[in-house]
Formats: sequence, structure tokens, C-alpha cells
Amino acid sequence: MHIESRVEKLREYMESEDLEAVILMNPENQYYFTNFYAITYSRPIIAVVERNATHLIVPQLEEMHAKEEAKVNDIRTYYETPGKVGDAIILLKKLLEGSKRIGVEKRFLPICLAESLGKDIIFHGIDSLVENMRMIKDDEELSLIVKAAKLADRGVKKSIEYARENVSELEIDNAGNFEILSQASKNYPEMRNSLFSMSPSGSNRTAIPHVFSTGRKIKKGDMIIHSRQVSLNGYRAECERTFFLGPLKKYQEELLEIVTEAQKKAIEKIREGIRASEVDRIAREIIEEAGYGSYFPHRTGHGLGLSVHEPPYLRYDSTTILREGMVITVEPGIYIPKMGGFRHSDTIIVKKYGAEVITRTPKDLGYLVR
Amino acid sequence: MHIESRVEKLREYMESEDLEAVILMNPENQYYFTNFYAITYSRPIIAVVERNATHLIVPQLEEMHAKEEAKVNDIRTYYETPGKVGDAIILLKKLLEGSKRIGVEKRFLPICLAESLGKDIIFHGIDSLVENMRMIKDDEELSLIVKAAKLADRGVKKSIEYARENVSELEIDNAGNFEILSQASKNYPEMRNSLFSMSPSGSNRTAIPHVFSTGRKIKKGDMIIHSRQVSLNGYRAECERTFFLGPLKKYQEELLEIVTEAQKKAIEKIREGIRASEVDRIAREIIEEAGYGSYFPHRTGHGLGLSVHEPPYLRYDSTTILREGMVITVEPGIYIPKMGGFRHSDTIIVKKYGAEVITRTPKDLGYLVR
Repeated sequence: MHIESRVEKLREYMESEDLEAVILMNPENQYYFTNFYAITYSRPIIAVVERNATHLIVPQLEEMHAKEEAKVNDIRTYYETPGKVGDAIILLKKLLEGSKRIGVEKRFLPICLAESLGKDIIFHGIDSLVENMRMIKDDEELSLIVKAAKLADRGVKKSIEYARENVSELEIDNAGNFEILSQASKNYPEMRNSLFSMSPSGSNRTAIPHVFSTGRKIKKGDMIIHSRQVSLNGYRAECERTFFLGPLKKYQEELLEIVTEAQKKAIEKIREGIRASEVDRIAREIIEEAGYGSYFPHRTGHGLGLSVHEPPYLRYDSTTILREGMVITVEPGIYIPKMGGFRHSDTIIVKKYGAEVITRTPKDLGYLVR
Repeated sequence: MHIESRVEKLREYMESEDLEAVILMNPENQYYFTNFYAITYSRPIIAVVERNATHLIVPQLEEMHAKEEAKVNDIRTYYETPGKVGDAIILLKKLLEGSKRIGVEKRFLPICLAESLGKDIIFHGIDSLVENMRMIKDDEELSLIVKAAKLADRGVKKSIEYARENVSELEIDNAGNFEILSQASKNYPEMRNSLFSMSPSGSNRTAIPHVFSTGRKIKKGDMIIHSRQVSLNGYRAECERTFFLGPLKKYQEELLEIVTEAQKKAIEKIREGIRASEVDRIAREIIEEAGYGSYFPHRTGHGLGLSVHEPPYLRYDSTTILREGMVITVEPGIYIPKMGGFRHSDTIIVKKYGAEVITRTPKDLGYLVR
């Protein structure tokens, strides 16, 4: 889907809800509707969609960048130098003068901004609309995600193969980083990319599902959950593998087998028309039947795209029905204090008649036990 | 300053403003007041400070992590599994039942959360209080920032020394990443760290102050602005160097000399008691006098600590007076379309009688021309 048709869809909604303008503050949504993505922090960037024009408010140091990349009708600049407008909010208020009903991301818009626009304005949430639009990926988005998945695979493989006694979690991450950045440089030289990884190791640290890598050195008998996301032009894929610096203990093998089976069975069920909650139920039942239900403390998976996590969520109480073009992870896990954590994650494109698994790092023990 | 005294200071303010509770949603502020920092994304984490207790609301998969690290009186958990409370907001509403005046980060609290707490609540902004507290770093914070600065230096040096013809921007970044993660593993094995870098190259890309690195390969005669931030346990330092794959052109040498001189003179002025705006004025005057005032589109520097950018800002209209223990960058720049960008950045601790420059990568041309 092109930027233009996305904006058009947003405008149809604006018309139906009688909104005069939409403010976009979330950088991912800004990118989705304007093609502009900046390195963001203390200087606000604001996108505004009106019925007949699109605008971007940027600090001066992003002006040239925005002119090159943003697909908007109008760029307005604020300055950090004397004698010029120095505040994004002043520009925004001027732009929205007279508007009474404004669409906003209610999960993102800070109340200071709402307050500074005035008490008379009615803020209408557009969160669900945008989430629903972003859930179904078009061909261009899918193509980026498939490429990102290939990079993630390469990185995960490199990290696993690099692991040996006395190598630290950070060094395991770094081996994969190196591979991914080299490959991305070679194959996608024009694209923006980003990396995230973590490699908790040992039976204490892997038992906590999400922790940052540290300099802890891995030891014989350790398990490691290596987790990796890669993005290309903002679009993300994820691959996670639990692997072992042998020898493998019996209980480790058993627990890994359970989560691997739960993941496999959940993936087999995926296709257009199945409920997200049903995918969670299948994985959860397998883990419960094995007696570890209380050690599976999270949903079975999540959508991904421009966000690290985004709808649909494979959660027991989700009402979402999976549709072709959705991209999700499937990653049931078992975490037992002092015994360790076990989880593989793969990225999947929902198809009409099944799941296309786009991360392909091996899961057989011959590969995962180093 | 210990967590306890930070909370105490917050409570003094709560008392003076008659606030019954404070909600902290910003992960950096949560860490500052509770010592808990999670990998955050789709699952909300909420910290609440009351007059007589501190609370943390976490998803189940962060429960053990929170128990290990959070210095709070009370941890409340929401679940992603059937039959239990599944929503952080339900827990928050219950916790705040009866409270009428609540302190919040107005620049961060999303309006959906404010709305779901009810119309009768008065939200009082605590942004300035927390910003002012965080601006002055204690010895423990400074010690982390100094360590991060040393890592940043090592990374920048490695990146500069790695640069040669046909090496890409991403590969330049990666050389520094590798060095930093290896060093951090060795010297600070228990600490959480994070990296950010960018290396725009060539006269077109460096003319845009902030762009993501790509696979663009550097060529003879290119300038490169290598920008690097490193954090240790959340605390950040920054070092940036403009360097060249020789031979150096005359105008490049002249422009680099101007920004280097502006930076030097601005740093010389820094000490307790000087206005932040005065530091900006000094750097800006030097660049203006050289005839390039309109090519310096940003403030002279920014504070840093837990945030990439945070107060104080060295901006012409700042009213902040610099105090001992503040940490700032000084980084005047010149950016001319098609001719390139020029900027060095160093991290500085404000002292009673001067500036302590804690990033020390060389700035002489003998080093910066490769």
C-alpha cells in the first residue's frame, strides 16, 4: 500500500467521524503515513493530516532530511537560534486553529500536548484504526520483513556458532551484530537498519524471560536463550533460539522438547480465519498437559512490523481473527527458577491456507548443543 | 544520592503540593526512583509513589526480575494467562482508589491513561521537579558516566582507525561496537549497557546533522561524522568526531577549525554559575564571526545522563544556570548543503571552577585525517 492510499484511508475515517485533523506523534505511525523517520529524542516531530493537506513540523536540523524523504504537502520548521519560532507547539496550534474535533493516538499523545491545545477540543482516538491498518502488511512491507528475517537468521547462526566457554553474553550478541551489519552493508546499502539482541545465559538468568545481556561468561553445561530482532527500513523480524554449551542434561532436553512441540503445533494451526486466542490455547494446552502450565507466564506470540511488538497478540483473551498478510511470532516458553528458561521464537506470515515460517535457523539438538 | 533520598525528595514535593500519589510511566524515571529497568515495549510497567509506600505494577514475565532488582515496598502483577487480572490499568485504578490529586509526568503520560483514571482526578505535573533532580548527578552517577565516556572514546578510536576506502558506514560503527562490548564484558561484566552510533559520510550525508548509518562505502576525500553514545547501567556519555579519508581539502580544514575553536572556547567558559545560554552564545558568536552563522542550525549542546538528551540545554533562550555535577555535551556544528557537515562533541562534567572534559579522543588533524 502506498503512502497516498494510507492517507486516503485515514481521511475516509476522518470524514466518518467528522474529524478536521489528525495529529500523529508516534514515530512509527509518522513513518507509516509520511515516509519520514528521524532519530528522535528531545526535539518533537509532529505529523498532521488534514482533509486536504499533510504537514510535518520539524526542528531546523531535520529540515533538509524531511525535504528529502517526507511525502507531505507542507514542512514547517522551528528553530534553536535567536529571532525565530522556537517551539513546535506554537506551530501546531497555529496549524490547528479553529479545529474542534481532532484525531489522536490516545495511547501515545502526552497530556501536556492535549492541555496546551486547549480545553474545547474533542480528542478522538484513532489508535484502533491505525493498529488495524498496520496489522495487514502489503507486499512491500512483507518483502522487507522477509529480508530482515534472513538477516536475523544469519545473525542468530553466527552468534550460536561463536559461543564457547568463557565467551560473554555481550560477545555472543556482538558476533551476530557483526554478521548482520556486514550483510546489510553488502545487500541493502541504502536501507536503514537496527539491531536488538539479548543472550541471557545459565539457569538463573534464562529463567527471567527478558533481561539485558551482560559480560557474564558462559560455562560448560549452560543454556543460553539468544534473542534477535533486525529491522530494514523500520520493518522487523525476530528469531530466538535456546541453545546449550553441552553436555546436555536430561531435564533440559525434555523441557526444550515440550516448548518446541508447543511451538510446532501452534504454527501448524495458523491460517487465515483462525482466532489468535486459539493459537495461544494450542501451545498452552501442550505445556499444561506436560505439567508446566504455571511456568508459561506470557502469551504465545505477538505481531511485529514497524514495532518490536504490535497487534495481533496471540493471547487467550484476544478477539482478533488472523488474516492473510499479518506477521506474528510464535514463542511459547517455560521458565523455572534456578532450572532455566526454554523458548524458540520464529517469525511467521499468515497465509490463506497456512503459516509461512520466514526464520529458519535449525532447531535440532545436533545444532543447538555446541 | 540513594533511591531512598530521591523518593524522600519526591515526597516532600508531594506534601507541598498536596499530592496523594505520583505515577511514573517514563522508564528512566522509574529506574531513577525504583532501581528497576526493564526491556519495555507493549507491556506497561507503572511505578507509583505514595506518601507511605512505593509500588511497581509489572507483567508476570517481569515479576522475578522486579523482585530481584526493584527497591519498592510492593510489587503487583498482571497476567497473560486465563483466570487472573490481565490489565495493568485495573491494578493501577485499584491502587489509586480515592486519590484526587496525583502527580504525573505530563510530557509522558498518554491521555488514554489519564482518561481511564477518571475525570475527577487533578493531574499535577512533576516534570520540572524530576528534571531538576536528575540534572545534578551524584558521585555514583558521575562514576558511571566517566566509565561510559572511556568506553565511548575506545569505540570512537576503533571506528576511526578501522575506516578505509570501501568500508561502509555500518562497518565503521560495528568496529567500535565490537571494541566497546569486549571492553564492557571484561571490565563491567555485571552492568547493563547500550550503544548508539551513526557515521554519515560524504559531503551530502554529513550535511544532514542526524541520519542513520547505511551501507554507503566511504571513498577517498570523504568526510565522516562519527557519533557515539554508550551507556552503563543506563548512564550515558557521548563522543563525536569529524574525520577524513584524506587528502583533506582546504575548505574542510577551515570549517573544521572553526567548529573546533567554537567548541574549545565554549568549554573554557563552563563552570558553576554560568548561564547555559552564555555557553551557546560564545560558540555561536565564533561561528557567526567566521561567516557561517546561518549554517549552525542547532543548540550548542545538551545534558545527558539516563536520557540521550536531557536538560540542561545549551540554547540561546535557556534560563538554566550551570551547577556543579551537571553533565553536558558541547558540540557546535556547521552544515553546508553539498559541502558537508563539521562537528565534534565531547561530554563534560560541570565543576565549581571549570569543565572536566571526560571524552578524550584526539582532535588534531594528524589523527583525524586517515
